[in-house]
Amino acid sequence: MFNIAIAQSGGPTAAINATLAGVFARAEKTEEVDEIYGALNGIEGIINDHLINLRHIIMNEEDKDLLMKTPSTILGSCRYKLPSLEEDDLQYKTIVENLQKHHIKVFFYIGGNDSMDTVMKLDAYLKREQIDICVVGVPKTIDNDLMETDHTPGFGSAAKYVAISLQEIIRDSRVYSIPSVTIVEIMGRDAGWLAASSCVLRANGEPAPHLIYLPESTFTLEQYIQDVKNAMTRYKAVIIAVSEGVTFPDGGSEEQAKDAFGHTQNAGIGKKLEEYTAKHFQCKVRSIELNVMQRCSSHAASLTDLEESERIGGAAAEFGIEYHQSGIMAAFKRISNNPYRVEIIPCPVQDVANKEKKFPVEWISPEGNNVTVDALNYFLPLIKGEPVLKYKNGIPMHFRIDQ
Amino acid sequence: MFNIAIAQSGGPTAAINATLAGVFARAEKTEEVDEIYGALNGIEGIINDHLINLRHIIMNEEDKDLLMKTPSTILGSCRYKLPSLEEDDLQYKTIVENLQKHHIKVFFYIGGNDSMDTVMKLDAYLKREQIDICVVGVPKTIDNDLMETDHTPGFGSAAKYVAISLQEIIRDSRVYSIPSVTIVEIMGRDAGWLAASSCVLRANGEPAPHLIYLPESTFTLEQYIQDVKNAMTRYKAVIIAVSEGVTFPDGGSEEQAKDAFGHTQNAGIGKKLEEYTAKHFQCKVRSIELNVMQRCSSHAASLTDLEESERIGGAAAEFGIEYHQSGIMAAFKRISNNPYRVEIIPCPVQDVANKEKKFPVEWISPEGNNVTVDALNYFLPLIKGEPVLKYKNGIPMHFRIDQ
Repeated sequence: MFNIAIAQSGGPTAAINATLAGVFARAEKTEEVDEIYGALNGIEGIINDHLINLRHIIMNEEDKDLLMKTPSTILGSCRYKLPSLEEDDLQYKTIVENLQKHHIKVFFYIGGNDSMDTVMKLDAYLKREQIDICVVGVPKTIDNDLMETDHTPGFGSAAKYVAISLQEIIRDSRVYSIPSVTIVEIMGRDAGWLAASSCVLRANGEPAPHLIYLPESTFTLEQYIQDVKNAMTRYKAVIIAVSEGVTFPDGGSEEQAKDAFGHTQNAGIGKKLEEYTAKHFQCKVRSIELNVMQRCSSHAASLTDLEESERIGGAAAEFGIEYHQSGIMAAFKRISNNPYRVEIIPCPVQDVANKEKKFPVEWISPEGNNVTVDALNYFLPLIKGEPVLKYKNGIPMHFRIDQ
Repeated sequence: MFNIAIAQSGGPTAAINATLAGVFARAEKTEEVDEIYGALNGIEGIINDHLINLRHIIMNEEDKDLLMKTPSTILGSCRYKLPSLEEDDLQYKTIVENLQKHHIKVFFYIGGNDSMDTVMKLDAYLKREQIDICVVGVPKTIDNDLMETDHTPGFGSAAKYVAISLQEIIRDSRVYSIPSVTIVEIMGRDAGWLAASSCVLRANGEPAPHLIYLPESTFTLEQYIQDVKNAMTRYKAVIIAVSEGVTFPDGGSEEQAKDAFGHTQNAGIGKKLEEYTAKHFQCKVRSIELNVMQRCSSHAASLTDLEESERIGGAAAEFGIEYHQSGIMAAFKRISNNPYRVEIIPCPVQDVANKEKKFPVEWISPEGNNVTVDALNYFLPLIKGEPVLKYKNGIPMHFRIDQ
């Protein structure tokens, strides 16, 4: 008999708790596993010995179901980066001491490329010291920018929320008889996957968003003006999806806006484009930031995403508990697109850690202002299906362990 | 046999099309009604003679069902104000000419307090000229600020969306171990109903939002600092709901932020409070604007709201078509709260036009930073129930007559 621990790191998604539920459920079925711990606030929870016993919290199927449909993470998160092993191995010793104190033989870390850095470093330390503890990475990020996996848990739900909200914004933007431009800023600091996914509306005959801008192609104001001009000749209400990672070519700090307290304002690309467009076209322009709702909207989650997120948790549990694999991350491999089928495979965590998978340039239109049908076909299966939510007083119920 | 026309005006909601469906369905059942016209872009559609035949567009029950669940308005909208009758009655003549040309005997105008001004003025003209045409107002606004009606169609869905999103933002805000303040700006230019409705989360045991600020009470920075300080001693992640109508006491134009083009930025109260709070408390602060998603999120609509919106459309049709009432608006009267029951009554449109119903001061806490249990009991029935949506490719289907 031995114990296991699970922790989560990085930004929230609508599907991290589903992955937690997946690891938990698979571990629960394994006779050799005694206690299943949750570490609070990621690796900090191991360092500070803040563990909770998940068997006391997830008591039955109803709990598990509610957990699956609760956004963000019940265990909290962190943005903590371990020092390099060569520099300072003191924290690694603390981590191992605490894991050993609680007889933890497998540690699961759910996170993005930064979190996989933690998995990689810890695994290297454990191997160097010949300590019999496995560390297994489980992917999550709404950015969909992890190498070695077809897509990431949490991305499908974010993409579905973006599509649903954007479709409603399109309806909203069309009410008045005057021409207008609506700019919707979508998350994705370095990779344009989520903004690109807004193309899914085309599958339902929606021509908008008419323009899609991603950080993977060069953005120039000349091309932008031409794009908007062309779109305005065809559409009364022009809709633009722009990734937050797109850089506004404003040429220098003297043009940075100052706020009321003299601080430089970090206005997003949406706001900057709004001001520029209004100045250039003298028409009604507005910008909308979908903000954190993109990453935590479990009320509009993709059932495919939730089910896959649970499944990848279960597979990761199998890799770690049954096969004693360490230093790996569970990854999706798309077997076929029609019918859509994925299998889950282990991949070396060093191929994922600190790396970013960019949106493919061959899926961007030559003008750099839209995406291709291959992109559409890639995205569509990921947003399918709607979970049945449990409502109380007209509001979806959430699984909560805190105030 | 005679014809009728329906138009919509003002800002979008998730329930205006449900009201349109309600008027249409009731009119369809009336043998004397021949054609049912929709005027495009509100009263402008009558003035410019832009009518469409709704019988050719809403063909069957499936169409009607999809229309009910499509946000914004399929007929478009306007913000057009008729000149006063005494000043200039030329436009009134045009309106009557066009109505008479199409044998329209009853004209329904779905809108807020500005739109009721149009109903009132047009009715006065018709009565003065002894023209046998009825004008009937049907309420709609997410602001819930119309006199003479217990609440307004569209408000319940907006309130439900705010509650659902806010609950997800609360989950999102709690992931890190450091203290934080999250400020959520909620629509309502002059009345705080929608921001106040965020209290519904309490019914599900959620202590947040910990502070609620409305335009109906005086906002001072001294009280605000004290409120946040108190909340921070109890909660790691403080959540604040603020109505966009709250004025930041910034005391003068020299503190106005300038954007990259030298324009004065009209930053909302949320952004201003974010900057102020970050400066004062030196902690993680963010502000989120729920933006137009609040008014068009039919994917998170209240079933009660949609059903009532359809019902009030039907009742208005009855008032106009059966009883030839003119210059009235259909209004909700709450008969009981437990069980929740409303009836629909006609009220004189002059009691509604250009007036605003403020959030009751007796429902605001003495400190002006929260709302009472009476407010909670008022709001709860309005957000109950979830419509069954029809999905295609993972996205809700919308009723569309345009590109």
